[in-house]
Amino acid sequence: MSLLATLDDPRLLPLLPAIYVAWADGELSAEEMKALCARVDDVDGIDVACREALGDWLDGAAPPRPTELSELLSAIRRRAAGLDHPERMDLATLAAELVHTGRPGMPLRAPEARAIAEIEAVLGIIGPEGTASLLSLTGRAAVPDEVSQFDPAALGAYLDGSRADIRNRMRRLLAQPRFGYRADIRRDDYREVVLAWTKELAERGIGPIGYPVEYGGEGSMSCFMGAFAVLGHHDLSLLTKFGVQFGLFGGSLARLGTRRHHDAYLAAAGSGELLGCFAMTETDHGSNVRALETVAVYNSATDEFVITTPHDGARKDYIGNAAAHGRAAVVFARLVVGDVDHGVHALFVPLRDPSGQTLPGIRIEDCGPKIGLAGVDNGRIWFDGVRVPRTALLDRFASVDESGAYLSEIPSPDRRFFTTIGSLVGGRISVGAASISVAKSALTIAVRYATRRRQFGPAGQPERLILDYPAHQRRLMPRLAATFAYHFAFERLIDDYVAGTMDSRVLEAQAAGLKAYGSWHAIDTVQACREACGGAGYLAENRFGALRGDADVFTTYEGDNTVLAQLVSKSLLSDYKLQFADMNLLGTIRFLAGKTLAGLREVAPALGGSDEDHLRDRRWHLDLFKWRSDHQVAALAARMKKRLDSGMDSAAAFVAVQDHVLACARAHIEYLVLDRFAAAIEANGDPASRRVLDLLCDLYVLTRIEHDRGWFLEHGRISAAAAKAIRKLAIELSAAVRRDSRGLVDSFLIPDAVLAAPIGR
Amino acid sequence: MSLLATLDDPRLLPLLPAIYVAWADGELSAEEMKALCARVDDVDGIDVACREALGDWLDGAAPPRPTELSELLSAIRRRAAGLDHPERMDLATLAAELVHTGRPGMPLRAPEARAIAEIEAVLGIIGPEGTASLLSLTGRAAVPDEVSQFDPAALGAYLDGSRADIRNRMRRLLAQPRFGYRADIRRDDYREVVLAWTKELAERGIGPIGYPVEYGGEGSMSCFMGAFAVLGHHDLSLLTKFGVQFGLFGGSLARLGTRRHHDAYLAAAGSGELLGCFAMTETDHGSNVRALETVAVYNSATDEFVITTPHDGARKDYIGNAAAHGRAAVVFARLVVGDVDHGVHALFVPLRDPSGQTLPGIRIEDCGPKIGLAGVDNGRIWFDGVRVPRTALLDRFASVDESGAYLSEIPSPDRRFFTTIGSLVGGRISVGAASISVAKSALTIAVRYATRRRQFGPAGQPERLILDYPAHQRRLMPRLAATFAYHFAFERLIDDYVAGTMDSRVLEAQAAGLKAYGSWHAIDTVQACREACGGAGYLAENRFGALRGDADVFTTYEGDNTVLAQLVSKSLLSDYKLQFADMNLLGTIRFLAGKTLAGLREVAPALGGSDEDHLRDRRWHLDLFKWRSDHQVAALAARMKKRLDSGMDSAAAFVAVQDHVLACARAHIEYLVLDRFAAAIEANGDPASRRVLDLLCDLYVLTRIEHDRGWFLEHGRISAAAAKAIRKLAIELSAAVRRDSRGLVDSFLIPDAVLAAPIGR
Repeated sequence: MSLLATLDDPRLLPLLPAIYVAWADGELSAEEMKALCARVDDVDGIDVACREALGDWLDGAAPPRPTELSELLSAIRRRAAGLDHPERMDLATLAAELVHTGRPGMPLRAPEARAIAEIEAVLGIIGPEGTASLLSLTGRAAVPDEVSQFDPAALGAYLDGSRADIRNRMRRLLAQPRFGYRADIRRDDYREVVLAWTKELAERGIGPIGYPVEYGGEGSMSCFMGAFAVLGHHDLSLLTKFGVQFGLFGGSLARLGTRRHHDAYLAAAGSGELLGCFAMTETDHGSNVRALETVAVYNSATDEFVITTPHDGARKDYIGNAAAHGRAAVVFARLVVGDVDHGVHALFVPLRDPSGQTLPGIRIEDCGPKIGLAGVDNGRIWFDGVRVPRTALLDRFASVDESGAYLSEIPSPDRRFFTTIGSLVGGRISVGAASISVAKSALTIAVRYATRRRQFGPAGQPERLILDYPAHQRRLMPRLAATFAYHFAFERLIDDYVAGTMDSRVLEAQAAGLKAYGSWHAIDTVQACREACGGAGYLAENRFGALRGDADVFTTYEGDNTVLAQLVSKSLLSDYKLQFADMNLLGTIRFLAGKTLAGLREVAPALGGSDEDHLRDRRWHLDLFKWRSDHQVAALAARMKKRLDSGMDSAAAFVAVQDHVLACARAHIEYLVLDRFAAAIEANGDPASRRVLDLLCDLYVLTRIEHDRGWFLEHGRISAAAAKAIRKLAIELSAAVRRDSRGLVDSFLIPDAVLAAPIGR
Repeated sequence: MSLLATLDDPRLLPLLPAIYVAWADGELSAEEMKALCARVDDVDGIDVACREALGDWLDGAAPPRPTELSELLSAIRRRAAGLDHPERMDLATLAAELVHTGRPGMPLRAPEARAIAEIEAVLGIIGPEGTASLLSLTGRAAVPDEVSQFDPAALGAYLDGSRADIRNRMRRLLAQPRFGYRADIRRDDYREVVLAWTKELAERGIGPIGYPVEYGGEGSMSCFMGAFAVLGHHDLSLLTKFGVQFGLFGGSLARLGTRRHHDAYLAAAGSGELLGCFAMTETDHGSNVRALETVAVYNSATDEFVITTPHDGARKDYIGNAAAHGRAAVVFARLVVGDVDHGVHALFVPLRDPSGQTLPGIRIEDCGPKIGLAGVDNGRIWFDGVRVPRTALLDRFASVDESGAYLSEIPSPDRRFFTTIGSLVGGRISVGAASISVAKSALTIAVRYATRRRQFGPAGQPERLILDYPAHQRRLMPRLAATFAYHFAFERLIDDYVAGTMDSRVLEAQAAGLKAYGSWHAIDTVQACREACGGAGYLAENRFGALRGDADVFTTYEGDNTVLAQLVSKSLLSDYKLQFADMNLLGTIRFLAGKTLAGLREVAPALGGSDEDHLRDRRWHLDLFKWRSDHQVAALAARMKKRLDSGMDSAAAFVAVQDHVLACARAHIEYLVLDRFAAAIEANGDPASRRVLDLLCDLYVLTRIEHDRGWFLEHGRISAAAAKAIRKLAIELSAAVRRDSRGLVDSFLIPDAVLAAPIGR
């Protein structure tokens, strides 16, 4: 008998869906098919013809041909078409309904129902899902509205805070078509575009905005940093060139120079008329600035400094603006007066004449292509007996007088060096804050894409939005939460910097730590967002390549992150005073090691439960993070002391415990970030914004605890039950944040023209 | 009295070093200076003139001028110059020795010694370090020899194993100057260079090496995969183009087509004469291949298929070789015969005529610039009623006969689909293995750089090699260890694939998991290595940009990693049989949930101690990782069951527990990798190689345990003491591996010309 002929046999009708399912996914072996038939055979009262037909259909030795199976499927679908929502029925109900269509008025008989139940049991099908896939109809789903429970514009204004005006001004400016990206442009052309943009920012007063009014500025570092953060959403070559010109070059003239340098150069630097470089790093010395080898030797006969690159490893390297556009540089060199090496100082050195020709004694080489930042002309500079007048020394902290005497109001050479370097902390803060802008851009693109992109899904229904997968939520939502956390931490840091009231060493340590962990967070976020957008994320037009390649160096420039992180711990070891030099560390360490561990144990936060109320208690979060930070410092001190006691010197001891140094720094920065986030929530008067920020803050905290739960468990700060509950809650909160995530990225207020990614609109 | 005049006062001589140190780092406030003087004042018997001079020097209200301090330093250095190794003396000893030089025959008096001790106590100086920094002489250090305790060449040969011949052949070939990288090349030119390279690999028989001898090959997939892994060290655009041409295009002709397709196209594909594409992915459907929307409708009147792109979302996207060079494509489309949609099948479709003109009905667009792989011409393809003969269907698993009937030996449409897709598993294995080559390249560059680059260091000594910092070791050495682990796992996977004896579903699950976690490992490693090389790492010439940008898409192509990881868990849930379709999962889940959790608890590995012998016991490692993997599967099954019991359908339940699905997959793959690594060590007959591999394997295991120690603690598999001991041991083993690290990267046998990075030589 032809299999297809049985399709019209009304007795077989109720079994048809089960037969199709048995074959469809091909998971049953011929033996299993036989067993299935045998079980159906055993059902009392089943019709013999029906049993035979079933045996024919399920004969593993002579399986149905594909066309027969597709005919079977068509027959089922045809009959089911007249039913109301057949996809919601389980297989037995569908069978009963099909019987109705085939033999009206006749109910499904008990043996048939039992046979279907047997088959379902073997196949392991429950509920309507077998049916749904049987009747699968693919359909294209509409893009759902994503409604937030808060006002993104209001939250955006709160994020902007006191810098809203400059930020909005920058957004409007950068959204102009002439600031549009040039795709696939040649490097030389790209550099010229970036130069033109930089000059426009100068002309519009954005570049010099931080300089005093008498030099064309507005005297507002707050505005400068606010503008810089918005540039972080735009082309990062522009951001970098802008930072080099107005922050590093102009800024070091302003901060390390005195009146004569300001009068001579500052207005021209701010207007973009005098393009300059910040020539600090050398090939052999990046992090260890104190060991730079370029020398500036004072010649009393001519009252000049003579600048020389003693060997190739001491050439200035990676210097922005050097390869093409820079006319001058602030050069860091060892100042030698008489026979005395006074260490690293900064001098103003012309590099090129007005026609762009390098001046005598100066050699410049292009660094060539880089991972990113192709629009920045990084170069290498060699000095061969370059003569500059004595007044070229930027002499705010040290000078050489007419008689050739070296003078400084800071007697300690170490302190003088670190005062010089420390005055440049603004760049580190700016770069750190800009890295958070990069994270915001990436998240905006990835979240918007994921609220439209569908892939896989339940049978018979539209495919699922990828942001509705927990794995996708876990990938993006904690990073979104951390981005808000870092946003508020940097806003506060900028405020503290601008106010100028914080101890400069505390400020420097915070700047170092936030820059390090903030930029690591940013590049990790860009990568996660790129992967979350799959192949579309790999296209250059969708910006991840630029964000990733350009921002990559944020972990290196303005201070290598690993080195910066260690400054945080050094500062903590020195009783919260930043101690760059190792020498005096020891007294502090002894002090700490003797006292604090015992004291800490007394004020440890309550272990508490694993219930949600406790796990979302902000007071507990703050206590727990504070305790971890304090404990890590004390434990670090104890580890240092042990090594010192055994005769190791302090530098070697600090290296030996480096792993703990970094753990300590991370714990402190995570506490700092949490503290800033919590304070920003407290200060927000809009209940709806507060609610979503609270949710984000909970997710931030719980994700960090989850990440470090080994440590918290080891130290008895959470129970195993709490650790599991935290993971569960972090998953749930990621789902909760997902519901507001469109609005949250909208609150970053990045203009579409600036974001530019087609998939990010 | 002039301060400088006191320098010659022999009574002050022993105090000079202490005075300098007190000022040098500028950490003491004026008040602290006063306190210091007061303490020295209290020392009985100290000379009055000496006390006064000291008071002058330490007067916080009138600090010495910089020149006075530098004179002081010069005086100390001058006098110390005649001593033997003054930098090894502590401050008191130095003082005593200086006294000798100033007043020969007179020992340091007790009050002076006490005064010095007082000053040292206030300053917190111990041992010789104060002295060392006083006498600091910078010197350029030689590059140290890095001697391995094993023979890198022998280890390299072991890594190459049975594929040594093809690998060495590839290394020699790619080291030829004509395969040298072209820096900074335009995209169009770059594509032509890559095309020329691809053709040379074809002509030299490397491209078709996996095809049967009768089509110009050697019938060796082992050689193909061995060659591919070496290409992973070279330009990844070439790797990708090579993979598209010979693996995906040619390979799908070989595996999905039958004799007529082989005869017609395979030799031409292998020789590079017929360049082709693998047109599977569409804009709207990447991972969910089953939902592709391109249709190939059979027209019985003309005995042809008509291929159509129904809407823009169904265009073929990201297709390699499409934008410029491909003459034909293997196109995946829904096969519609009569009214029946038989799902996705592959057809051979010509795209361009010999002159390069696209054929009627075909529209191709360039995907434009990407994050990397600029040498690959990815494109988008639309089909508008493109007619191909019935025989264009690659009909190994399904065909349409002359009468227009659809035939297949595989009755189940699901099974037929997954058999089709599964036959392409070789590409996934190859890409996974190549990602490990990328990690090797990055590590070779970073390790070699770090054994020459110095930064910071103890006073008076050469700066420290950056690889001698524990933080640097912790960054690179565990990744080096994991790279060896993945190497052996992929070698074994290739062997199993080539042997063809493993259950295809187990093989597919292993390929999916190893590709996912291997490629994640690779891009994480490249990033860590880039950062470890600082600014030098950011220069394009040092290759990290290319490695990073090109390999980035390895996490997406040949299967999105997050999707692939879930396949591993699906396979495990199905009692170690891969189950792509969800439908039959349920029986297995019920089976698992009912039984295994209880059973597992009985065979849990001993908790054991925290001593090193235990922590380095390979049996314990294997038992622990196996237990974790089994436990995760059972726990996952239990979680699924709970949701199913509450009425959730299986697809929704699988999504709901997605976080655990991924954790389970990772646990299994880490076990698999460990098992393969351990077996490879066992099989190595060279004691020196075994010793270093054992060390690496210990480091791999302990790093993974440390990473997941929260889980192990929660599940009572390690104690808090053991967790801390593991961290300590991981730090120590990183230091131990560092000693052999030069040799270890040498054993990867990457020719300098192929590695190309100047800092990686």
